[in-house]
Amino acid sequence: MQERYVDKNTHALISDLQKLIRQPSVSAKNLGLEECASLVVKIMKKSGIKAEILRLGKDIPPAIYGEVISKKNPNKTILFYNHYDVQPEEPIELWTDPPFSGKIKGNKIYGRGSADDKGELVTRIKAVESFLKTTGDVPCNVKFLVEGEEEIGSMHVESYLKKYQKKLSCDGVIWEFGYVDEKDRPIISLGMKGLLYVELSIRESIRDAHSSLAVLIENPAWRLVEALKTLRDKSGKILIKDWYKEVDKFTSQELGVISHEPFDIKSFKKEYGITRFLGNKKGIEIQKAIVGDPTCNIAGFSSGWEGPGAKTVLPSKAMVKIDFRLVPKMDPIKQLARLKKHLKTKGFEDIHVHMIHGEAASRTQIFDPFVKVVKEAADESFGTSIMSISSAGTGPMHSFAKVLKAPCISIGSTFVYARIHSPNEFARIDLLKKTTKCMCKIIKKFST
Amino acid sequence: MQERYVDKNTHALISDLQKLIRQPSVSAKNLGLEECASLVVKIMKKSGIKAEILRLGKDIPPAIYGEVISKKNPNKTILFYNHYDVQPEEPIELWTDPPFSGKIKGNKIYGRGSADDKGELVTRIKAVESFLKTTGDVPCNVKFLVEGEEEIGSMHVESYLKKYQKKLSCDGVIWEFGYVDEKDRPIISLGMKGLLYVELSIRESIRDAHSSLAVLIENPAWRLVEALKTLRDKSGKILIKDWYKEVDKFTSQELGVISHEPFDIKSFKKEYGITRFLGNKKGIEIQKAIVGDPTCNIAGFSSGWEGPGAKTVLPSKAMVKIDFRLVPKMDPIKQLARLKKHLKTKGFEDIHVHMIHGEAASRTQIFDPFVKVVKEAADESFGTSIMSISSAGTGPMHSFAKVLKAPCISIGSTFVYARIHSPNEFARIDLLKKTTKCMCKIIKKFST
Repeated sequence: MQERYVDKNTHALISDLQKLIRQPSVSAKNLGLEECASLVVKIMKKSGIKAEILRLGKDIPPAIYGEVISKKNPNKTILFYNHYDVQPEEPIELWTDPPFSGKIKGNKIYGRGSADDKGELVTRIKAVESFLKTTGDVPCNVKFLVEGEEEIGSMHVESYLKKYQKKLSCDGVIWEFGYVDEKDRPIISLGMKGLLYVELSIRESIRDAHSSLAVLIENPAWRLVEALKTLRDKSGKILIKDWYKEVDKFTSQELGVISHEPFDIKSFKKEYGITRFLGNKKGIEIQKAIVGDPTCNIAGFSSGWEGPGAKTVLPSKAMVKIDFRLVPKMDPIKQLARLKKHLKTKGFEDIHVHMIHGEAASRTQIFDPFVKVVKEAADESFGTSIMSISSAGTGPMHSFAKVLKAPCISIGSTFVYARIHSPNEFARIDLLKKTTKCMCKIIKKFST
Repeated sequence: MQERYVDKNTHALISDLQKLIRQPSVSAKNLGLEECASLVVKIMKKSGIKAEILRLGKDIPPAIYGEVISKKNPNKTILFYNHYDVQPEEPIELWTDPPFSGKIKGNKIYGRGSADDKGELVTRIKAVESFLKTTGDVPCNVKFLVEGEEEIGSMHVESYLKKYQKKLSCDGVIWEFGYVDEKDRPIISLGMKGLLYVELSIRESIRDAHSSLAVLIENPAWRLVEALKTLRDKSGKILIKDWYKEVDKFTSQELGVISHEPFDIKSFKKEYGITRFLGNKKGIEIQKAIVGDPTCNIAGFSSGWEGPGAKTVLPSKAMVKIDFRLVPKMDPIKQLARLKKHLKTKGFEDIHVHMIHGEAASRTQIFDPFVKVVKEAADESFGTSIMSISSAGTGPMHSFAKVLKAPCISIGSTFVYARIHSPNEFARIDLLKKTTKCMCKIIKKFST
């Protein structure tokens, strides 16, 4: 019944998603967030969901709370966690269509946020709508928490969870995204990596100087290069003392799940135009790295003249942004202290370390009954599915598990090469529909 | 006679300089060059100098040729070489007044190009004007070559010199700039360093990726960091094989001149807000480095997200701009080949090396009679002067020496902390006047 409703109302799903894409909501720039939050409330209400704006303070982007209480089964609650903010659209020149166009080409809707996370949000809303419009009720209580800071580190989601703990109480959380692989198999992910995002900056002199003075004045970009080189070896291994100290090895059970995770090397290499993997990883090493490797990634580096041609300048300052992915038991604050100590020990006291974001890793137990519910729904909707003990990405799953004490599972509609965070991000319409139907099945199975 | 004329007409010197500053002419951006060249012609003509635009081709910024043939002494010629282009004004936010304001505060005129090189150009023009307005003649022929690509490497000045070799023939060249130290002593510089300016770039994948994929995809910024670290040690020494192969040690004579060059360590450190020198240089090492050290300076570095906050991106590409200063006998093309070979040998074949500019070093012999002329004029005008065998900076002096076969000497009005190439660049009005008078004396002494 709900399936037929979803099929019949694809145009509404698409047009709601387009509306959301066309409302830029770049949290890194504090752009369009209030407007987008209001739009989400409007779209939820149109679908029959009771929706309201939640606030923590005037400088903090609002969150949206959505709710439908089940008439026949008000004792079980599923929570959908999503976000309405998007990554910056830069570099704009690499987009074929404008970043916020919502343009449709064949089976794809293009635009920043089309997949991450506005497309996912729409599938959840439309699943709930399909119950309300066909039965006038939902099989169990459904709640939504839609935040506006996911792309800059969900700094306040834990505060929202704590402040509205009662309102948000639930028995299971469907995570804000989920990947679908190149063979259209949804990946059910039970965990997320943690993140330590820092900015290292250094100022050597009080102003830029003529580069002929490089014989005398220390160059801050050189200082950063020297410091960076002490952090990581060529294979990607982090050289900071005790960095891996608390990290557990995989259990044989975990290795079993990992070994069943397919990974299409050819497609991946083709998609990114690469010929080899970092550290020449091969076979199972690849899957193990995705699930379990901490990283030290240069997300941005800036110093001096970056325009065309030659400017003979000795820059006064340099900056690098690094994101370290963490695995369970790595505490972001502890790792930050290790990084700071490392720099000091190596003689780089002049480098300022600013933590932009810290987030612990989290994993839901594979034997949790909620896992079975999602697995069955996914298999029925997509024909098959893949189980993963952790995504390579990061989110505030640890906060949800801690505050709501509910299992969290990630499943969704995002094609693995949907170019999220990159130019020409897209959502596949067929997957949006399948995922909406899958959400219906999850709600139904969960309520029994 | 000319001195009095200069004193009486300071307001015209200032207003001509302001006009030039207010006409932006940023060669790196190809901005305002034609307009500025026309303005130079206009100002020259107003001063009684025959002036014309020289052209090599339609995409090459024009040069200006200026000429006054002496009625009483047409067999000796002095050439003034200057440039009308300026460095980019960025970072704009660090300017107290707009970069092209020409604002006067007390003894200073502010603005991009106020010192480098529009202020210098005006002193030369006004010196010639003072002869024409007071005597109706010049003591010897005076020629000008004013180019528009100095700040991007004077790529075509050698072609201009070759094409107009006859027109530009001369017996001595006064260089486009000269420093005045913190004790108001002009520095007579007989040489310039060479330059090899390169852009190293690398592209690892065809598009930016989500940074969680850093477990698999090589990061181009990391690759550059690894490559850079092999180029230079912490003290500034360049580690490329044979980099110093052709470099001569200083002769005892050269060391004599160097040891007499004053250097005010305290003022320098205060000006740049630094507490130590690169490689902890002390005493005579400082002067030796300024005159004779090759450098490897990171002039710019760019990769990934450089805006505020956190973007969890794995950049697809990274770029670094490096300027290597060269000393006599180092051939830029040979050094480029050594750099390329080095990167290949170290396993960085994937790094693309693009040469933006190459220029050989040059030095005029200390015993050339032209040196005596300039030294005497400077001592008389400023009370004293400092002799230097080479500036730390670079210019196409080698081309002038080669094509015109004339000695080149650098002397001028630029206060050593005039912030050239940096925000809040300024020219000191007292030094502009003194230098104009010094140019008068040089012309007079040169013609006898």
